Amino acid sequence: MISVLLVGNGNVANHLLKVFQTVKDLSVLQINSRNLTNIPTAAITIIAVSDDAIAKVSSKITNPFVVHTSGSVSLSALQNKTRKGVFYMLQTFSKDKLVNFQEVPFCLEATNENDLKTLETLAKLLSEKVYFINSEQRKALHVAAVFANNFANHCYQIAEEICKIHQVPFEILYPLIEETARKIKLLSPKEAQTGPAIRNDQQTIQNHLVLLNLHQQEMYTIMTKSIQDGH
Amino acid sequence: MISVLLVGNGNVANHLLKVFQTVKDLSVLQINSRNLTNIPTAAITIIAVSDDAIAKVSSKITNPFVVHTSGSVSLSALQNKTRKGVFYMLQTFSKDKLVNFQEVPFCLEATNENDLKTLETLAKLLSEKVYFINSEQRKALHVAAVFANNFANHCYQIAEEICKIHQVPFEILYPLIEETARKIKLLSPKEAQTGPAIRNDQQTIQNHLVLLNLHQQEMYTIMTKSIQDGH
Repeated sequence: MISVLLVGNGNVANHLLKVFQTVKDLSVLQINSRNLTNIPTAAITIIAVSDDAIAKVSSKITNPFVVHTSGSVSLSALQNKTRKGVFYMLQTFSKDKLVNFQEVPFCLEATNENDLKTLETLAKLLSEKVYFINSEQRKALHVAAVFANNFANHCYQIAEEICKIHQVPFEILYPLIEETARKIKLLSPKEAQTGPAIRNDQQTIQNHLVLLNLHQQEMYTIMTKSIQDGH
Repeated sequence: MISVLLVGNGNVANHLLKVFQTVKDLSVLQINSRNLTNIPTAAITIIAVSDDAIAKVSSKITNPFVVHTSGSVSLSALQNKTRKGVFYMLQTFSKDKLVNFQEVPFCLEATNENDLKTLETLAKLLSEKVYFINSEQRKALHVAAVFANNFANHCYQIAEEICKIHQVPFEILYPLIEETARKIKLLSPKEAQTGPAIRNDQQTIQNHLVLLNLHQQEMYTIMTKSIQDGH
């Protein structure tokens, strides 16, 4: 039986609470990070609060092993006097959308080997995708995720704008978008690249530019150049 | 019984041939676009050749109804003297990857109503996603697809570069990438946006920039600004 204490009431804490409650051999409690007077003890204390609050909240916890759940904060930012670790899930958590934890990659770090094993045992109760990732790697992963998630999504947004202006339903693009996301499991993104930029099809590029507004033209030109430069 | 003649030997022609051969009430023949001396007749002649070759190939065909399969070429580019149309599938076709045609959106155009109905009948034998799209709309859709496919894929590529440099397996990002692609079916890309840019989290943005090389910094800054400008 592993005992877990969850500190926080945000999306990550709430999603974790729900899934932990479905697991046998696990006892879980949740407390609010703003009321840390009477803290129950637990084998693993998971602080799932905003990045800025991690130092302050952790400084008030005397439990033996304390981890945070942030992608961009170092292990050393934890201010508890006891053992430290990181329990980072690389996925977007939205309030009303159910998370399939079996598909969530868990990125684990701890200052000692035994604690890392404990985190591994906990993570494997939820998911098969478990990775040991140190603080430097985790930061790099976090930036990479900004490109793969936020910036790719921004490309979808510009595509939607273009569809709206020309009165075409954006949904026509859904299958292409899903296929593009699936394809990189078989081919690397560089190998999977197609389209006028990589073919250097100047005629199509010119035809495209005349259909775009100034901002879209700028984005089109920058992305095309970056693709052609082989980045 | 609909009779179809396929002209061309590329990915699109070959994938279409395979799927047409599985359909009852359809007879299909394929010929090479470089040998147009003895052209069999058919109710629908589908020219699936490169954009540049459409005019020349179509000029040699006397069959009653001729369509091309290109996203970026107008219906009026067809040079046959008979009836014209467009049978455009908005999906990426790779040589060795099976296509699930039920998920492929068909974008149809024809100069007369009866021909449009014939194309609709043909498309609905393969897919439920059938749209009537004129030449101007189709061109816009083609540019939008460049953003949603080529440019989003380029963001994946930069993410992979960052992972490589920092020795993190890129596969950790697969579930996030798939979730991002799925999410826009429930929320528009603008509503779905998350991350440091849209939150204007300057501390995280600065932390990210120091991890990147010059080219990655440039792309990061441009995308961040575009997100913050609300495009």
